[in-house]
Amino acid sequence: MDVFSVTVLGSSAALPTATRNLSGQLVKIANQYLLIDCGEGTQVQLRKNKISIQRINHVFISHLHGDHFYGLIGLLSTMHLLGRTKPIHIYAHEGLKKAIEVQLEVSYSKLSYELNFHFLKKETGVVIVENKHFCVKAIKLKHGIPCCGFLISEIQKPRNILKSAIDKYSIPIKDRAEIKMGADLQTHSGKSIKNEEITSDPPNFRSYAYCSDTAYSESIVDLISGVDLLYHEATFMDDKKDRAKETFHSTASQAAEIAGKAGVGSLLLGHFSARYKEMSLFLEEAMVVFDNVALAEDGKEYII
Amino acid sequence: MDVFSVTVLGSSAALPTATRNLSGQLVKIANQYLLIDCGEGTQVQLRKNKISIQRINHVFISHLHGDHFYGLIGLLSTMHLLGRTKPIHIYAHEGLKKAIEVQLEVSYSKLSYELNFHFLKKETGVVIVENKHFCVKAIKLKHGIPCCGFLISEIQKPRNILKSAIDKYSIPIKDRAEIKMGADLQTHSGKSIKNEEITSDPPNFRSYAYCSDTAYSESIVDLISGVDLLYHEATFMDDKKDRAKETFHSTASQAAEIAGKAGVGSLLLGHFSARYKEMSLFLEEAMVVFDNVALAEDGKEYII
Repeated sequence: MDVFSVTVLGSSAALPTATRNLSGQLVKIANQYLLIDCGEGTQVQLRKNKISIQRINHVFISHLHGDHFYGLIGLLSTMHLLGRTKPIHIYAHEGLKKAIEVQLEVSYSKLSYELNFHFLKKETGVVIVENKHFCVKAIKLKHGIPCCGFLISEIQKPRNILKSAIDKYSIPIKDRAEIKMGADLQTHSGKSIKNEEITSDPPNFRSYAYCSDTAYSESIVDLISGVDLLYHEATFMDDKKDRAKETFHSTASQAAEIAGKAGVGSLLLGHFSARYKEMSLFLEEAMVVFDNVALAEDGKEYII
Repeated sequence: MDVFSVTVLGSSAALPTATRNLSGQLVKIANQYLLIDCGEGTQVQLRKNKISIQRINHVFISHLHGDHFYGLIGLLSTMHLLGRTKPIHIYAHEGLKKAIEVQLEVSYSKLSYELNFHFLKKETGVVIVENKHFCVKAIKLKHGIPCCGFLISEIQKPRNILKSAIDKYSIPIKDRAEIKMGADLQTHSGKSIKNEEITSDPPNFRSYAYCSDTAYSESIVDLISGVDLLYHEATFMDDKKDRAKETFHSTASQAAEIAGKAGVGSLLLGHFSARYKEMSLFLEEAMVVFDNVALAEDGKEYII
């Protein structure tokens, strides 16, 4: 099975610390590299983690607070300096295009490759990009400015027709494509055989949801229901619940509550406020509500 | 004597490496903190080196290639998030204002303090800023785009009148200010006593020149003549002399030649191309031409 993983490049909110960079994640899926968010310092994190930046063809920026995108211009410049010619696709809110273009303009730069901007819409659940490798849908988050999470899924593989069924029913080749997609079999004698009797499940198709930045919002639960891994921001703990609400952020226990309601496989917490030093308390707080929790650590790869 | 020093925050050209950040220097002079250049990652370097960012009131950006300024927006944002109210002065070419303002605009940010932009002019030797603490003059460099080095000097202190001279000539208080500034003494009897006989030198006033990025250019020699420390870029070694010329950069031996012609106290080389791994070769190449050379190391403070 192809690697499907998330490498956390930064897990600090707002300010970088000596041990935590600003938001950035590298998702490997079906041999594709996707970058989610790109705070200052992301390119160095990619380099330190030996991730080839030229393999990144898709960049998703959740929202335009600086800690999520100020590192993009530097990454794009480095790709250029290293001779990139492949186009890159950037999915973001509209203002980003202007910010990137002005910085290229004042620095007398013309990139050696094409930048393709795709503007995020407000509707939740819409497909942002889908190809033979992966599908990314928008998750509308609840933040002070327009903010979009990302639901990243493998493409569902067709079902496998059982060898024994092919022999037993002499299934004609012309019918097999539809059966693989879930159709029942109609025999010569006019009998209908249920699909599940003649096929086996394809490999599970896995999914990952990135939800940062966001206040506690149950409206995301349906969309992220059953994902294998949920990254949910936990800027604060419950001691700062009011502050979290004011600033449209979540606490560790709120993130865990969402994970529980959505029945996700596991929960990864991140986007921690620099004020906290004892990180194990985040874990304790979340685990009261939901069992399978981990804390994001810069440079660590989480297999999905 | 007050500390006058340069802490190198980044010494890599164009691309950050795992051990070298992009251009940035913190100059301490007369209890003031000046920042020169601000490549991506500079704010983290300041933090790692325990330099209080709120003490920085003056930022000098040599030119608008991204590796010299893409970190500024993040630093300014962090100053804001940490509650700064003091204005900051930014000395740079005109395009920087637009780049900063657009990024603030698209990220819905309004800073809690004033940004004062001062645009650099093309003339060499002009005073950019002078106050009771320091003086900064422009050094016109030879680069692909407008580029300005910085000559940073302490303010010359007045001369000390010798106690013995005061007693011997009963120097009136009203005459002392002029004598401290270098005037000769006129005695009651009409005799003129030379200033150097009745005063001692004030503490040396020290100076530092930052010359990056630049091709080999003898036109800077007069202005930087006799500085205590010269930081001169050495993007390449002589093996890439043609490449250096093409890209308006210098080699280690060219930097040393400038240091020799200007009779500087010592030479600090930096802005190294990421292609070089064996850095001691830069030192060897430069020391053939000039004795007192050091290589910039990220995080190291060089006392002037």
